[in-house]
Amino acid sequence: MNVWVTGANGFIGRHLVRVLADRGYRVHGIGHGAIGETERHRLGLEHWLNGEIDAANLNALAEHSGLPSAIFHLAGGSSVGLSIAQPFEDFSRTVASTARLLEWLRSAARDCRLIVVSSAAVYGADHEGPIGVDAATLPMSPYGQHKLMMEQLCRSYAVTFGLHSTVVRLFSVYGPNLRKQLPWDVCSRFQAGERNLMLGGTGAEVRDWTDVRDVARLLTEIDGKPQPETFQVINGGTGLGTTVATIAAILAKCWGGSISVQYSGIVRAGDPASLLSDDTTVRTLPFDWTIPVEQGLADYVSWFKDQIR
Amino acid sequence: MNVWVTGANGFIGRHLVRVLADRGYRVHGIGHGAIGETERHRLGLEHWLNGEIDAANLNALAEHSGLPSAIFHLAGGSSVGLSIAQPFEDFSRTVASTARLLEWLRSAARDCRLIVVSSAAVYGADHEGPIGVDAATLPMSPYGQHKLMMEQLCRSYAVTFGLHSTVVRLFSVYGPNLRKQLPWDVCSRFQAGERNLMLGGTGAEVRDWTDVRDVARLLTEIDGKPQPETFQVINGGTGLGTTVATIAAILAKCWGGSISVQYSGIVRAGDPASLLSDDTTVRTLPFDWTIPVEQGLADYVSWFKDQIR
Repeated sequence: MNVWVTGANGFIGRHLVRVLADRGYRVHGIGHGAIGETERHRLGLEHWLNGEIDAANLNALAEHSGLPSAIFHLAGGSSVGLSIAQPFEDFSRTVASTARLLEWLRSAARDCRLIVVSSAAVYGADHEGPIGVDAATLPMSPYGQHKLMMEQLCRSYAVTFGLHSTVVRLFSVYGPNLRKQLPWDVCSRFQAGERNLMLGGTGAEVRDWTDVRDVARLLTEIDGKPQPETFQVINGGTGLGTTVATIAAILAKCWGGSISVQYSGIVRAGDPASLLSDDTTVRTLPFDWTIPVEQGLADYVSWFKDQIR
Repeated sequence: MNVWVTGANGFIGRHLVRVLADRGYRVHGIGHGAIGETERHRLGLEHWLNGEIDAANLNALAEHSGLPSAIFHLAGGSSVGLSIAQPFEDFSRTVASTARLLEWLRSAARDCRLIVVSSAAVYGADHEGPIGVDAATLPMSPYGQHKLMMEQLCRSYAVTFGLHSTVVRLFSVYGPNLRKQLPWDVCSRFQAGERNLMLGGTGAEVRDWTDVRDVARLLTEIDGKPQPETFQVINGGTGLGTTVATIAAILAKCWGGSISVQYSGIVRAGDPASLLSDDTTVRTLPFDWTIPVEQGLADYVSWFKDQIR
């Protein structure tokens, strides 16, 4: 089976390519970043096209690799902060690239299945408790807004042209190779010798933490399931909330030694108090999450200590 | 006062430029289409830049004309049918051009007011009775979807960067120079000598018909009012519904002679049974519609007969 991964050189992309290759897929990638031959083999990529997602490059990839049975679309903006610093760049990466991909599929590969990685950021800040896929969407950042627009383009091509797509809204994905966000920041400060950490917010912020290895398996298994609707949205979260304070405490324990963490109480504007998945859609696939945060974070700390050696 | 009109060469754009110029604004335009010097003067345009809405052209326009106090953003896709035939073209015209415009405003003209022409097509087909601006949006065509995405970009730039924009969702705009849609089709068939017309649908489809001259005045007057919110949405409809059968009957009466109109009963997929504005937002501006359909259609028939002489 011939599948493509856009953004295969990203944090989740690299994990996904590995899982797909291990399951016997022939995996081809397109997106930004140079990947050398050795690295390409190590990742599990048959072919890597370093370039923009546009008709010319997609045609070139098809000529080289044949048409795909599925495309995992992971390319796009990956940072709320960068989307505020450079909103047009985020728009181009997330929305315009998806528009070009869909248009290419419409003309060249109508039966190809599209699995699109979106974000819980589409929901915005005003939710309490588990958020279902039909909840109101009111994104608070260009990042979340552009992900929502990406989803809407997929829905539009499904409704009008019958293209099949599955949107997977991921929650707080962490794991080996993540070099940003809370686990990275906390470990980096432990590494720098800090023993009395002051973090922003209250520590009570609830997130639905998912290990990237589970997420890569989820995406792969979605492709293996029948798709009942032309367009579907899946919440890629566990349904279990863990506070920032708990995450920091687990990281401190895994790191070892005497460490204390305090909170400034200053909440970042637009930072939701809670982003927790209603996991109905993912449970009914069915799919089981296998890496609890305690294990995932222990693995993360091990990876962190390894990579700085 | 220096104002810009994007898409100034379009059906509504040309009417708007005339109203603005008559009120003493210095009007500059950007968009597609060649406009000769004589025509430019006749329209009321001080300057016309025939080109894409991008940073280079917007900079060029600013250098030539100075920064605007307001931009009326009318550029974009203008046909449901074309948006299905060429969805990426419609995306580029409506969404990508707005992204470039907003980004340019963010860097070059943050205090400029933006008045954005959108469409009732964002609401989709499942509404009964008057539709309020907070009603669910579920567009049925790429045209409507892209207009909604355009609106969301404006909201995002308002929320994150404080850019002021007003979205005006227009309903069924007709009037002199409209060379498509129901009034044009019906008059063209009268003109061709048809006396027993068969139209699609049931004739009972309800639309909120607005004369383009009223619409041009509405857009102009919105610029003259204070804007209470950074981002606001206004329904640009009268709140009065008129059926297709009534419109056809008025046109037949204005045309003169013995004419009968029948309906096939075959409804086009995705064609809403009713698109009627809840006019609360427009009434509270305040704004009064002055051209009832009977008069507007009589004027339309006169214009039609004049232009074919």
